[in-house]
Amino acid sequence: MLDDLKRDVWQANLDLVTHGLVTLTWGNASGLSEDREKVVIKPSGVPYDSLQPEHLVVVDLAGNVIEGSLRPSSDMPTHVLLYRHFDGIGGITHTHSCHATMFAQARLEIHPWGTTHADHFFGAVPVTRPLTQHEVEEAYEENTGRVIVERFRDLDPISRPAVLVAGHGPFTWGRSAADAVKNAVALEAVAEMAFGTQCLRSNPPPLEPYVLEKHYQRKHGPNAQYGQF
Amino acid sequence: MLDDLKRDVWQANLDLVTHGLVTLTWGNASGLSEDREKVVIKPSGVPYDSLQPEHLVVVDLAGNVIEGSLRPSSDMPTHVLLYRHFDGIGGITHTHSCHATMFAQARLEIHPWGTTHADHFFGAVPVTRPLTQHEVEEAYEENTGRVIVERFRDLDPISRPAVLVAGHGPFTWGRSAADAVKNAVALEAVAEMAFGTQCLRSNPPPLEPYVLEKHYQRKHGPNAQYGQF
Amino acid sequence: MLDDLKRDVWQANLDLVTHGLVTLTWGNASGLSEDREKVVIKPSGVPYDSLQPEHLVVVDLAGNVIEGSLRPSSDMPTHVLLYRHFDGIGGITHTHSCHATMFAQARLEIHPWGTTHADHFFGAVPVTRPLTQHEVEEAYEENTGRVIVERFRDLDPISRPAVLVAGHGPFTWGRSAADAVKNAVALEAVAEMAFGTQCLRSNPPPLEPYVLEKHYQRKHGPNAQYGQF
Amino acid sequence: MLDDLKRDVWQANLDLVTHGLVTLTWGNASGLSEDREKVVIKPSGVPYDSLQPEHLVVVDLAGNVIEGSLRPSSDMPTHVLLYRHFDGIGGITHTHSCHATMFAQARLEIHPWGTTHADHFFGAVPVTRPLTQHEVEEAYEENTGRVIVERFRDLDPISRPAVLVAGHGPFTWGRSAADAVKNAVALEAVAEMAFGTQCLRSNPPPLEPYVLEKHYQRKHGPNAQYGQF
Repeated sequence: MLDDLKRDVWQANLDLVTHGLVTLTWGNASGLSEDREKVVIKPSGVPYDSLQPEHLVVVDLAGNVIEGSLRPSSDMPTHVLLYRHFDGIGGITHTHSCHATMFAQARLEIHPWGTTHADHFFGAVPVTRPLTQHEVEEAYEENTGRVIVERFRDLDPISRPAVLVAGHGPFTWGRSAADAVKNAVALEAVAEMAFGTQCLRSNPPPLEPYVLEKHYQRKHGPNAQYGQF
Repeated sequence: MLDDLKRDVWQANLDLVTHGLVTLTWGNASGLSEDREKVVIKPSGVPYDSLQPEHLVVVDLAGNVIEGSLRPSSDMPTHVLLYRHFDGIGGITHTHSCHATMFAQARLEIHPWGTTHADHFFGAVPVTRPLTQHEVEEAYEENTGRVIVERFRDLDPISRPAVLVAGHGPFTWGRSAADAVKNAVALEAVAEMAFGTQCLRSNPPPLEPYVLEKHYQRKHGPNAQYGQF
Repeated sequence: MLDDLKRDVWQANLDLVTHGLVTLTWGNASGLSEDREKVVIKPSGVPYDSLQPEHLVVVDLAGNVIEGSLRPSSDMPTHVLLYRHFDGIGGITHTHSCHATMFAQARLEIHPWGTTHADHFFGAVPVTRPLTQHEVEEAYEENTGRVIVERFRDLDPISRPAVLVAGHGPFTWGRSAADAVKNAVALEAVAEMAFGTQCLRSNPPPLEPYVLEKHYQRKHGPNAQYGQF
Repeated sequence: MLDDLKRDVWQANLDLVTHGLVTLTWGNASGLSEDREKVVIKPSGVPYDSLQPEHLVVVDLAGNVIEGSLRPSSDMPTHVLLYRHFDGIGGITHTHSCHATMFAQARLEIHPWGTTHADHFFGAVPVTRPLTQHEVEEAYEENTGRVIVERFRDLDPISRPAVLVAGHGPFTWGRSAADAVKNAVALEAVAEMAFGTQCLRSNPPPLEPYVLEKHYQRKHGPNAQYGQF
């Protein structure tokens, strides 16, 4: 079942590698079924070059495996929790991509210094608080999802489809697994540019709010002018 | 019509990717017809690996589409305005290449610290002022062209074929689309070297003006000694 | 003899190159036989693209060549000494990978700023003291092994399978040559991320000890949840 | 004539590209004939992917073209002058490789922070003084060679086969064109590591002189232990 979704999610996992976002097996992508009840996700620790669509694992929104003989990614509970809380998302990625992880480790949000950022993220990419010892010991992966959701209490996850988990690395999401991968690629590029901008100048001038608005809306707003229809 | 120009501009767009200047679809190249009345430009948001010469869009110098079924790049009005104001240019690129964009975001011009710079740009690569809110809301892309032209009021665009739009990224130009791509490649390399030079030493010694002159003229002057004739 | 081990060690040497950890011939991998009496190691100064499994050299744990017509890597005495002292390791690599070597040259240990580090190294990657002039002149390569062993007097080499030799570069080890390569890849990635983290923020917040523990144990502990069984 | 040398120099020029040391056409390699009377060098401004051995130009040690229909590299007079003054060298490269050029632009020598450096360069890689206006206007390329020779008045070019021309970039040399390329690769790697070392720590500890000596001599000394015989 879900053969099309499995193929899409398989492709999304391979695309993370092609875009240079993954070292060894440090990355995974998932997708949500159209009825929003099942999640297709990468199995844990399987090398990308032997990964096939039929290796993907299907879980329900409580995190129970309902199809597949392999164990799901250890980050599965985080993915499932995000699908439960973020309406309208259909795909998620988690990577340790180099520059985004630098910001996650420095626990600094990625400011929108330029229009590349504004084309994809409508404001700074936020950082979560660290988990408490209790949260780690009780249900580490699920609570990782909870601190992300907590961080977005007053933020819109649709227009800001990425987060940095403090001391860990980025998660991105989107309408589909492919869209989440696109946001992971954009996040890494934006992080690298922000890194260099901050090296060149300790207090870079913030992007004018009306330029942020213009760029985000011209790509994503109701009157988007970008791409073909 | 303009089949040769379409092929040249198509190749220029692919070369931007080959040279590593483009992430996702963040880049475009255009070329001007010999009669200087028509512009061939990349369509908006089309992935490079499916782009064919016949997908390119032809517009006039007022920005009206006169051939092609796809929408032109959203940056088309900037290209057209530059062709109208910069005599002698025949090709333009716009990218978000990593190191040039760092300088654009930091809103710092790229100083000529060395001969690599001097071989391509006869002086610092300038930064525009930011657009006003009115300029953004009225005609963002066309006004992006206007602030570039304003920045070059006292500069020669032929000997300094690149600019950084504040908070955005680089545009480059040249005699042809291929020449504009060459300048985009040179700009990114020069930006990366300038970045490192400024990390190593907070006030690097400026290049001697007579070395800047010598290098620029030996490649581009009336008695150029470089290359074959 | 040891044909399987030769093939594994040959593959490990090639994998160091594939993962971008080796410039010119600056790297080598070795593996220990199951009886823990013989070491298979790369010959000295042979280019990787002409290296064949049968070129590998077999030495005993005193460093005597017992098979092979080529000279072993000049770093062989370091490898042999580590096999004699670190119980349970079956493979070793030495590279001059770029970011790990930056830390070795700066003589700064690599702090665990994030979970990528914690997934592979249970604590900071330590730096040795420099060798004395006497140690260098007497038996440089063997004494390089001795300062590594000295540095691990109060550390567990199994849960911290890497070291930076001061002013030199990294050694990594593991259960097998392939496992040592995996740790060399992880070390270089972790070093690059730590470099950027420290550039972004001069005193980054340390990773919470309970997160370090959780990540290390979920991959390597008795109840490891990672990968397939 | 000199067909073998042409093939070697042609290969050396291509290897500069393969090793990532060349952007556009910014690089060239040359070789000296066995009788030390003729130099084979890349023609000026010819793209590497169409370069053939028969395109190479032969000049004498006064810089006169004695074979070939194309113009030699504009840097030819620098190469020729170095062959006249540095006994025992048989090949030269000039590139604008990224990190070596950063140091040349910052006009900072590359200190031997580690053994990677010591394996190839027996001491710091020096920087020339800038040329005077008179030197630039009179005979720029030849005088570039003169300031290099001046810088080596008290240095041995054989054990320190590289220089940074102030505000310009690196030249390297060696026994042959292939050996000069190897030194160009080593220089760029060493420059990148030095860059990072100096970013991590403003005053890195110098490499112990006896380690510098040991590493240089074990690769290049009369009792070299490295490689096969």
